[in-house]
Amino acid sequence: MTACETGGTMAERLVVIGGDAAGMSAASQARNRRGPDDLRIVALEKGFHASYSACGIPYLVGGEVGGVEDLVVRRPEVFRDEQAIDLRLRSEVTEIDLDRRAVAVHDHEEGRDYWEPFDQLVVATGALPSRPGLPGADAAGVYGVQTLDDGAALLRAVEADGAERPRAATVVGGGYIGLEMAEALVRRGLSVTLVEAGEQPMGTLDPDMGALIADALRRLGVEVLLGEGVTGFSASGGRVDAVCVGNRSVRADLVVLGLGARPNTALADAAGIPVGETSGIRTDRRMRTPVEGVWAAGDCVETFHLVSHRPVAIALGTHANKQGRVVGINIGGGYASFPGVVGTAVSKICEYEVARTGLNEAEAAAAGFEFVTETVASTTRAHYYPGAREMRTKMIADRRTGRLLGAQIVGQEGAAKRIDTLALAVWHGMTVEEMTGLDLAYAPPFAPVWDPVLIAARKTAERLERLHTGG
Amino acid sequence: MTACETGGTMAERLVVIGGDAAGMSAASQARNRRGPDDLRIVALEKGFHASYSACGIPYLVGGEVGGVEDLVVRRPEVFRDEQAIDLRLRSEVTEIDLDRRAVAVHDHEEGRDYWEPFDQLVVATGALPSRPGLPGADAAGVYGVQTLDDGAALLRAVEADGAERPRAATVVGGGYIGLEMAEALVRRGLSVTLVEAGEQPMGTLDPDMGALIADALRRLGVEVLLGEGVTGFSASGGRVDAVCVGNRSVRADLVVLGLGARPNTALADAAGIPVGETSGIRTDRRMRTPVEGVWAAGDCVETFHLVSHRPVAIALGTHANKQGRVVGINIGGGYASFPGVVGTAVSKICEYEVARTGLNEAEAAAAGFEFVTETVASTTRAHYYPGAREMRTKMIADRRTGRLLGAQIVGQEGAAKRIDTLALAVWHGMTVEEMTGLDLAYAPPFAPVWDPVLIAARKTAERLERLHTGG
Repeated sequence: MTACETGGTMAERLVVIGGDAAGMSAASQARNRRGPDDLRIVALEKGFHASYSACGIPYLVGGEVGGVEDLVVRRPEVFRDEQAIDLRLRSEVTEIDLDRRAVAVHDHEEGRDYWEPFDQLVVATGALPSRPGLPGADAAGVYGVQTLDDGAALLRAVEADGAERPRAATVVGGGYIGLEMAEALVRRGLSVTLVEAGEQPMGTLDPDMGALIADALRRLGVEVLLGEGVTGFSASGGRVDAVCVGNRSVRADLVVLGLGARPNTALADAAGIPVGETSGIRTDRRMRTPVEGVWAAGDCVETFHLVSHRPVAIALGTHANKQGRVVGINIGGGYASFPGVVGTAVSKICEYEVARTGLNEAEAAAAGFEFVTETVASTTRAHYYPGAREMRTKMIADRRTGRLLGAQIVGQEGAAKRIDTLALAVWHGMTVEEMTGLDLAYAPPFAPVWDPVLIAARKTAERLERLHTGG
Repeated sequence: MTACETGGTMAERLVVIGGDAAGMSAASQARNRRGPDDLRIVALEKGFHASYSACGIPYLVGGEVGGVEDLVVRRPEVFRDEQAIDLRLRSEVTEIDLDRRAVAVHDHEEGRDYWEPFDQLVVATGALPSRPGLPGADAAGVYGVQTLDDGAALLRAVEADGAERPRAATVVGGGYIGLEMAEALVRRGLSVTLVEAGEQPMGTLDPDMGALIADALRRLGVEVLLGEGVTGFSASGGRVDAVCVGNRSVRADLVVLGLGARPNTALADAAGIPVGETSGIRTDRRMRTPVEGVWAAGDCVETFHLVSHRPVAIALGTHANKQGRVVGINIGGGYASFPGVVGTAVSKICEYEVARTGLNEAEAAAAGFEFVTETVASTTRAHYYPGAREMRTKMIADRRTGRLLGAQIVGQEGAAKRIDTLALAVWHGMTVEEMTGLDLAYAPPFAPVWDPVLIAARKTAERLERLHTGG
């Protein structure tokens, strides 16, 4: 008779692959509900750091954040000493064996390999930077910005002195991270070129809103190349020295890849854990994969878009934390579920705050909606109050029902967090006419008497009314 | 046969009593939908100004706003010339005669009286400052802050030179306007005493949150007297010189009454237009009074609280504008309704931003709810990002269902507008558990990875879970 068969004292074994937001949230929440005698927790992280803010990397590189340690949310000792979580850094999982119920681990520190058995497994392997399959893309001096180790390497590069000091940088890709990095590198005194294959940077916004951002980057001194893809990298002595853009060669002492990220599912895929059409790991609402006892959370999973009703893979720390918490509560014996997303995002680019939620025009069309749009200019505070700044709010509304499908904001200080109000309106399927009655906070230091959200709703409702009455 | 009976060409006559937010919004919206040949519009305003921001008065008095004209949203000529609205200033309505379908007008400029006939009437008579019925309350130097004319008079007083220059001011009442005025008077170099009969200023917040504000005022140098009512005013030569507080006499060269406002319904009352239990004019959702062809909007009406399901009278420019718009659309032949309120408000007091929505503890108890509360401390941005400021978020949730009943925020720059997100959660009857999954915007310059709203929801949900499991 084994210990298990006695109904006994052997603790259940939880293994977590990946020690960042999703993995450590899951571990912590599970521990909060089940003590070490009941649940043994091993967390395996291949890098040097666990539980950090990857979103802070541009500010680390730009010098606004003091050092790498400032981005660490919780130090490894805290997990080990206060939560009895056996967190192992530089420990890379190389295989998941679902039959053996064990993962193969390579310990980079000690140079040894071993099997770690599990009863419950959390796959939180994060995302990998999209790397163009182009000549020279693996040269030294080409950086991703997904992990804190990436960020630390880039920080060392921009702070290098003497002959090693980089003077020209190219950022490939004009999404949130690419733009944040371009600004950070300008702050460090580098001459920066941004290469974006699309017609506008910030492709998750509509082109009319994205154009405002391109202008701001140019005013900051960034050379912005739009509608041109990178065709390769040239290197000398194994180090990148230029980026090929069409027929041109753009000098680059360092290159930052800001082409977005894709779910890192190699391990899961190889083990036969199902991956969905977005290439993210499939889970149900409780973050269970279809494999018994195997959970997944964070940038490696796909989730559900509440407006398009389609699966989406969105790499964002805030989703990772929430999903990890859901996993941990469920493993801990509680009940929690992740409801899906509406695609909210925000960023600060130069003097602009940029935000979106719901569907943009292209996404709405792809999801089969017919819609109207309206963009209004207003101010963040009452026009007469000191510090009132300009902002533009765009709404996309279903043409028949008036339901808000999505919204975008580009504005100056104090503009962007209004996207949360719009995110809730999208979440609840509000019509723009309903929104005109919302009880939003008003006082001159905070908003005009008609908040920009209300003005946009009113103007969109009026456009719909004209459409329906033929006026 | 009259012109009317021919089905004919005589325009309908709309009379609007009150030329501020509600009245002029109604007039403008009606005009947008019906031309001058179809609708003749007369707007009667007893003061010197129409269509202004009364909420800006504290910033006018404090010197942050250049002058009285900056608070005028739209100049009278614009209404007259561009919208063919016959706006008459210094024209006070002294009687509504529902049988004659006419209002009696006293023209203060010309010193004459006349009757103005109407087919449709909008009552937008605003609010009157609550004045304590105490000896000396009518002395010179005692100011209300309801109208722009009040504000202009107060501005002249604080800017007076020489012997007339006031040195000591007392603000009676510690609500939003009282506190904003106390800060404004400190900015003007006056020695300021605030007298509040309750145990804390900002009585629309719970005492624990209001206490933070009292501390901030004291740090600013305001003498804060709590739990003591004003018992009278002393005057010499008809001018106030002191305020009696209990047995003490507090020197005051000027006094500001910040005791709130009550609906100004004397005219409606006298005419037999029904007034509700809050003493505001009763309307339906389309802002119709029970009297055919008579509408009401703005600070003079009562509205419906979507959480308590009780009538409430709330004097706020943002409601006045929305209600006025609803009236105008309906008179114009369209269809619009005002849905009610959730009690959202925001203010800036010293370094603090202060906001609330839904019900506070006392209101929730009065409405029959049993509830739990949770208050969390967090930061406005990621802790490592420059400019991260402290904020406290309090939630009040129904004890059985977990539904969010109300929320309050006290924090530094960047904190308060999050109340809009909470207002939408209250509006939609979300539970705090549901809120933990909300897709709110995250990036280090805007929020920690768990937005303060999400942290508060999580902690409140955890408190409820402990309560229900007896943990």
